[in-house]
Amino acid sequence: MNLIDNQVCFAGEQRRYQHSSTVLDCEMTFSIYLPPQSNSKTPLIYWLSGLTCSDENFVQKSGAQRYAAEHGVAIVAPDTSPRGDAIPDDVEASYDFGLGAGFYVNASEQPWAKNYRMYDYVVNELPQLLKRNFDIDTGRTSIMGHSMGGHGALSIALKNPGRFQSVSAFAPIVSPINCAWGQKALSGYLGSDQTSWKQYDSCELIASAAERLPLLVDQGDADNFLAEQLKPELLKQACEKHNHPLTLRLQPGYDHSYFFIASFMADHIHWHASALFAK
Amino acid sequence: MNLIDNQVCFAGEQRRYQHSSTVLDCEMTFSIYLPPQSNSKTPLIYWLSGLTCSDENFVQKSGAQRYAAEHGVAIVAPDTSPRGDAIPDDVEASYDFGLGAGFYVNASEQPWAKNYRMYDYVVNELPQLLKRNFDIDTGRTSIMGHSMGGHGALSIALKNPGRFQSVSAFAPIVSPINCAWGQKALSGYLGSDQTSWKQYDSCELIASAAERLPLLVDQGDADNFLAEQLKPELLKQACEKHNHPLTLRLQPGYDHSYFFIASFMADHIHWHASALFAK
Repeated sequence: MNLIDNQVCFAGEQRRYQHSSTVLDCEMTFSIYLPPQSNSKTPLIYWLSGLTCSDENFVQKSGAQRYAAEHGVAIVAPDTSPRGDAIPDDVEASYDFGLGAGFYVNASEQPWAKNYRMYDYVVNELPQLLKRNFDIDTGRTSIMGHSMGGHGALSIALKNPGRFQSVSAFAPIVSPINCAWGQKALSGYLGSDQTSWKQYDSCELIASAAERLPLLVDQGDADNFLAEQLKPELLKQACEKHNHPLTLRLQPGYDHSYFFIASFMADHIHWHASALFAK
Repeated sequence: MNLIDNQVCFAGEQRRYQHSSTVLDCEMTFSIYLPPQSNSKTPLIYWLSGLTCSDENFVQKSGAQRYAAEHGVAIVAPDTSPRGDAIPDDVEASYDFGLGAGFYVNASEQPWAKNYRMYDYVVNELPQLLKRNFDIDTGRTSIMGHSMGGHGALSIALKNPGRFQSVSAFAPIVSPINCAWGQKALSGYLGSDQTSWKQYDSCELIASAAERLPLLVDQGDADNFLAEQLKPELLKQACEKHNHPLTLRLQPGYDHSYFFIASFMADHIHWHASALFAK
């Protein structure tokens, strides 16, 4: 693991690392913010980014460092797909499949299965790497994300009961089975048998959730992708049906951008810190 | 003037406009943040960006909108040079002269004199444009900037006594006469006669300042450009010699980036708001 950047920010350190991923079979970068005086009791929040993003968008645009510093939490931001010239990409180089669009699943179809294993990377390999290399409490974690990364955060938290203290999402894809982005990604990575898709669909996972971890979701009502892709009403229905605690906030006038994310980042970090530091 | 983007951010509006600049003889863009419930009493802060920046870097990376919303101030961010295929650029397309490097001066040398008039643009044309088009108090203003834009903010405030309620800078070029960036820019735009350079050198302007407007300057002590280009000690010496009020803060560990700017943006907006809302 190589430190490729380290910049002081809100008296903590915004670092960027490169490492060889066994799971993804390529070189990867991730960013991590360490708050001032971080130590072995500092908890960790995972941030999962949306389509087209790398690990850098969140770091540069979310404004999260201020709140992480205030609460004394670390935040790690992985990339959104395997990377490199050797990694297969969508033949049309579209923004919503292939590079930059790993969807936090383990692909089973060719030619994706060898590299596109972002679920295993985020759930297993990256946490082990962090545990070995950072003197923070990697056993005390929360998870959040945006859009495709909101889907990742919700589905990963639901699939791993007991693993996260809290979960939240900004404008998440709540049901990839039921939107064009998700259908394209899941059919490409997992094949046409839709039963295999359900393991990555948050609305499906709610039904069998072994833990009633409360969900915090913010959604802008001027988001261009609201009606066709994001459909928060499906999450609301699933949570109501299965009595799963959900705080869904429709934020008037906000779109899908980091201006929206930045505006509510304080609330999300507070939400996670409250859970991470609960007695 | 055409609105080309408008995004809700911290309950206010982050807008971007395109307009024809007479002074620069080209199409220009600028960004402006309007806080929630902005009205005819809302004061305005000018933000001047550094080398290579457009009007967008500040908007995406500084995190200023939160503080502007809290204090009820608008912030306008102009571009850093004239723009377009018809605008002459440095033959080597260097980052520190020509496009993206207008240095907030009025060029007198050819081929720059026709377009490179960023001083007049920021001091005259843009304020008139804002006055005509926005229902805010464009007569109640402050100014701040970063690096080349810190030079712009300090020199413009010093050259225009009574015009600004307050001024501040992040890692400014305090004396372009005495650093390589400044020497390249001023010799290129103004010619080899250094007497003409003094009108744009903050340390020179301090000597003849008709108003003792207090200066707030933050400077990271891990800034790569500190010793060779920025030299805040020259400003300190000039202010001490001429009894000009200066708050110069060396911030340990911080570099030249927007991570540094974001970390102290709250202080700067508070500094300006205190002056703008003073009785």
